[in-house]
Amino acid sequence: MNTLILERLQSKVELVEQVGKHLVLSGGKRIRPLLTLACSRLFQEFPGFAIHLAAAVELIHTATLLHDDVVDDSHMRRGEKTANDVWGNNASVLVGDFLFSRAFQLMVETRNLEVLASLSNAAARITEGEVLQLTSAYSLDLSVETYLEIISSKTAALFASACEVGGMIAGMDPMLQNDLYEFGHSLGMMFQIRDDVLDYLAVSFDSGKERGCDFLEGKVTLPVILAYQKGLKTSFWKNHFDGETSNNLSDLKTAVHLLKDNDIFGNCNNIARKYHQKALKSINKFPKTVIWNDLKKLIAYSLNRQS
Amino acid sequence: MNTLILERLQSKVELVEQVGKHLVLSGGKRIRPLLTLACSRLFQEFPGFAIHLAAAVELIHTATLLHDDVVDDSHMRRGEKTANDVWGNNASVLVGDFLFSRAFQLMVETRNLEVLASLSNAAARITEGEVLQLTSAYSLDLSVETYLEIISSKTAALFASACEVGGMIAGMDPMLQNDLYEFGHSLGMMFQIRDDVLDYLAVSFDSGKERGCDFLEGKVTLPVILAYQKGLKTSFWKNHFDGETSNNLSDLKTAVHLLKDNDIFGNCNNIARKYHQKALKSINKFPKTVIWNDLKKLIAYSLNRQS
Repeated sequence: MNTLILERLQSKVELVEQVGKHLVLSGGKRIRPLLTLACSRLFQEFPGFAIHLAAAVELIHTATLLHDDVVDDSHMRRGEKTANDVWGNNASVLVGDFLFSRAFQLMVETRNLEVLASLSNAAARITEGEVLQLTSAYSLDLSVETYLEIISSKTAALFASACEVGGMIAGMDPMLQNDLYEFGHSLGMMFQIRDDVLDYLAVSFDSGKERGCDFLEGKVTLPVILAYQKGLKTSFWKNHFDGETSNNLSDLKTAVHLLKDNDIFGNCNNIARKYHQKALKSINKFPKTVIWNDLKKLIAYSLNRQS
Repeated sequence: MNTLILERLQSKVELVEQVGKHLVLSGGKRIRPLLTLACSRLFQEFPGFAIHLAAAVELIHTATLLHDDVVDDSHMRRGEKTANDVWGNNASVLVGDFLFSRAFQLMVETRNLEVLASLSNAAARITEGEVLQLTSAYSLDLSVETYLEIISSKTAALFASACEVGGMIAGMDPMLQNDLYEFGHSLGMMFQIRDDVLDYLAVSFDSGKERGCDFLEGKVTLPVILAYQKGLKTSFWKNHFDGETSNNLSDLKTAVHLLKDNDIFGNCNNIARKYHQKALKSINKFPKTVIWNDLKKLIAYSLNRQS
């Protein structure tokens, strides 16, 4: 799949290739395309075009990262400078569009219309989630319900589709495709909740430029919602999120301690655990192969991962 | 088609709808979707899904406009404030992605894979053209050849595909589909050359905020390339485009007079006329119906339009 992606990043316009490769080669987890590949072979060897489909899923994800980094004005990702930091916002916007188009070209090659429908729906939902985040997630008024709606769109929709299209390309029964969709959705919810916890939990005050972002950008996520609802130092959160957000590392330290000392991360995990149960249930009907076992391990990992 | 577009702009996220409608309702020419519709009925009444396809073409175009306005930092379009001016770059980037996804959803509904292949290829080429423009078009080194390559990608590719998919959805013979592709490509080239001429020719020094953009942004286009190659006041152009570009209206006045007095617009038209001939030739084989006649009128209009 990596080879195929590199092949499709080729362009007669040099900068397109450079920017695309920068992010694709910077070593993400590749969790979404792995899900597509794993789901496609729950019953059989890889069906034809599974790799095309996995590459398309990763390119859609990469396109959204390029655009997210512009929207959030981020300068570091995966330990490296972001594309917008190196080449400017303009190149990131345009190359994101290019990757998105390439993803659709790959999907068209599969000649499977159900796959195209699923992933184009997911792409639309991702952007709706991002816009909802833009308009609602910078205020302490954010409810748990709206938070879950945001992450359901911006993250879980692509996880869900990545799994579902694996089942589609393998020609599975629609009921089983739906189980894979539900599995991916639950996994995506757990994944994003853990991401939002790690943004506080994994803060290192030496090199921690990549964590603590949500706090420093003023983006309200689950740990803050729960702490605020519990009435923990409400004026501290109010000052930070609803006042003039300051890029203040000592405030971040205070926030991390508040969340740790009051077991807010445990409360977040309780919510994640519901999705954990749903995810397990969704793949229960599938044959208990090595791949199935790997999916089970992935569910456990997603609940407690440290990075 | 307008009704269908409005229906598909609906979103549970309010801002998505607002931003989308802002641009879609601001009254563009709708030339690309009209081409799709016209080409689809050169032999017959509208085939099924022609309107879906036309809406998809317009949404792809609108998505690129939203992103272009961010990339060019434009503040006015079609006499109104741009979306990025009103709601910020972030909303424009994300809603552009949303429109692009909606376009793909519409294409998937046609269940025609050739159409999907044609328009996803066009979408990839548009972004390559935009990036090539970003890296090459801000210097007087730009050759006519590279200029033509830029506009072939950023403009003519979508015109070509808009026409081709009209033929595809009507089930035309592949040779005729190819004729429509060539027709659209030539028309797109003429259209963009005229646009670049009008950017100077239609400057009004009273309300002319929307024209003269290329000059004021330092973007080199055909009139400037030809004037510079002719050796007309080379130091004037050098100072403006390769020096510190100043947002200087009196320089713009000088530029317009130089181009007018030396018939540079005429020279541009000579290049456009070659595409005019090619466009006419490409639709020669089609039945001489009312629609065919309209396409011929459109070719003539594109060569001399004043706005």
